[in-house]
Amino acid sequence: MKKIKIFSPATVSNVTCGFDILGFPIESFGDEMTISKSDNIGVRIAKVNGYPVPSDPKKNVASVSAEKLIRHLKPDCGFDIEIKKNIIPGSGIGSSGSNAAGSVFGINKLLGEPLTTKQLIKYAMTGEGVSSLTEHPDNVAPALLGGLVMVKSTEEENIISLPIPKDLFCFVINPKIEVKTSYSREILPSKVELSLMTKQVANFGSLVHALHTSNYNLLRSSLVDNVIEKHRKKLIPSFDKVKTKCLELGALGCSISGSGPSIFALTKGEGDANKINSEVSKIYKETNIDFSTYVSKVSSEGIKIIDSD
Amino acid sequence: MKKIKIFSPATVSNVTCGFDILGFPIESFGDEMTISKSDNIGVRIAKVNGYPVPSDPKKNVASVSAEKLIRHLKPDCGFDIEIKKNIIPGSGIGSSGSNAAGSVFGINKLLGEPLTTKQLIKYAMTGEGVSSLTEHPDNVAPALLGGLVMVKSTEEENIISLPIPKDLFCFVINPKIEVKTSYSREILPSKVELSLMTKQVANFGSLVHALHTSNYNLLRSSLVDNVIEKHRKKLIPSFDKVKTKCLELGALGCSISGSGPSIFALTKGEGDANKINSEVSKIYKETNIDFSTYVSKVSSEGIKIIDSD
Repeated sequence: MKKIKIFSPATVSNVTCGFDILGFPIESFGDEMTISKSDNIGVRIAKVNGYPVPSDPKKNVASVSAEKLIRHLKPDCGFDIEIKKNIIPGSGIGSSGSNAAGSVFGINKLLGEPLTTKQLIKYAMTGEGVSSLTEHPDNVAPALLGGLVMVKSTEEENIISLPIPKDLFCFVINPKIEVKTSYSREILPSKVELSLMTKQVANFGSLVHALHTSNYNLLRSSLVDNVIEKHRKKLIPSFDKVKTKCLELGALGCSISGSGPSIFALTKGEGDANKINSEVSKIYKETNIDFSTYVSKVSSEGIKIIDSD
Repeated sequence: MKKIKIFSPATVSNVTCGFDILGFPIESFGDEMTISKSDNIGVRIAKVNGYPVPSDPKKNVASVSAEKLIRHLKPDCGFDIEIKKNIIPGSGIGSSGSNAAGSVFGINKLLGEPLTTKQLIKYAMTGEGVSSLTEHPDNVAPALLGGLVMVKSTEEENIISLPIPKDLFCFVINPKIEVKTSYSREILPSKVELSLMTKQVANFGSLVHALHTSNYNLLRSSLVDNVIEKHRKKLIPSFDKVKTKCLELGALGCSISGSGPSIFALTKGEGDANKINSEVSKIYKETNIDFSTYVSKVSSEGIKIIDSD
């Protein structure tokens, strides 16, 4: 294999009470990347289409994570990366994670899979470090592994795929305004009331139990964030209106994806997600902010190979 | 049935990262209670053997919860309660919970089980309110239901029995000094660092996942409390020494039971629990504080009927 073309999904992270812990890929939306072997040692960003990202390999998340990987694997070739950038940077749906994960996935395939997908996570994380200044796997892990991924810590054995109940769908709206992850983190309080912490712990434990038992009622009462959302929602136009509408239309839960401005809702079945899509779009049209929406199954699939040669 | 004699177990609560959320009964230790129907309407504490508890029915947790239950059920008889009090009040292993749960369990049986065991929890909680000033189900729920019980909130559907991996045992040491729940709560900080909260949330989610998948390695890395233990352990002589020894001898986790002074450890298999019992007893003998220890399977059984008539 000399060339590989992949689809690397956008990802929802900070899933309600799973702040900095839980994420999943959006099956229907992401970036395309083409990675080709080259006789020239090293990694290059050969082309970027779509939204602009750095072409300097030291600043592009895809090449930074790729560099880290080839420093480990020491292949006798180099790599050229082309990116079709569909996910806007700063959208809260893992724009950098998509590319940081995609490059290491592609290179690993081109080299005959010397590493497991799980082993790639730590290399993808270095890419994340370039854009968000913290190396965190909550976007790259779900992009690579697919499914609902719980990150207990960055060690391999602590990155855990959770069961996905049949019929779990998501709706995502991405308002096209940028919220810087760093600013979105700044506005969080450094401390949390003990009683709120206990609620968050209980909700997350119940969420995990609900996933294991396909208990949709418990899922509904557990998909709640008492700690983070109330601070960050101020950065997102019409957040409360959107959330109220989502819950009114049967969403199991609704909150901010990543550090915003994207908002996601989880539903039982595609029907509810489609209804939400149509009604929330009406709300957002009134804001005069450009936006995109996505409806997608919460599937166990991560990065997909589109073509190889 | 006119008379029932029951065994109501002591319970470990605040199981590491499950502060105010997770508890389980100690199969091998608890109080005995005998409850008899009487022609005299109302509830009386007829006799107390063992450690002293109030005989005034307005102050005894068993009669307070019983009162609440009969106000609802309106039986045409009254009840006399005898308590053989083996669990020291203020020991951190659900001394009041044992009696608050036992009385409503017994009365419900005597009346032909008009309520389910789960429905009894809210009545038992009123008893808890007398002794700890907060009506919390984290001891009465595991005493009544048996097994590992997660309390998401006090509504019935949010009191959840978690799966118990085969071979899960506990060791408990109860130093015979009293730690007042109210004081033990006072010394807790009102706020927790956001990063510590995230760790606690992740650990609890992983703990629930580990229980569902019988993953003992994950159980070991999840049975950790980063928030509460460090404050309360100061009230417990030789806590660090005991914990270090427990972990050295293979314990999956070790922390404070309830608000202390009891300390518990969870183990894979009875062998490790017995070894821990013997070595921790040596440590505690050096303190010159009287103590008891218990080794018990973490079983799915709660209150047991010893005899009925």
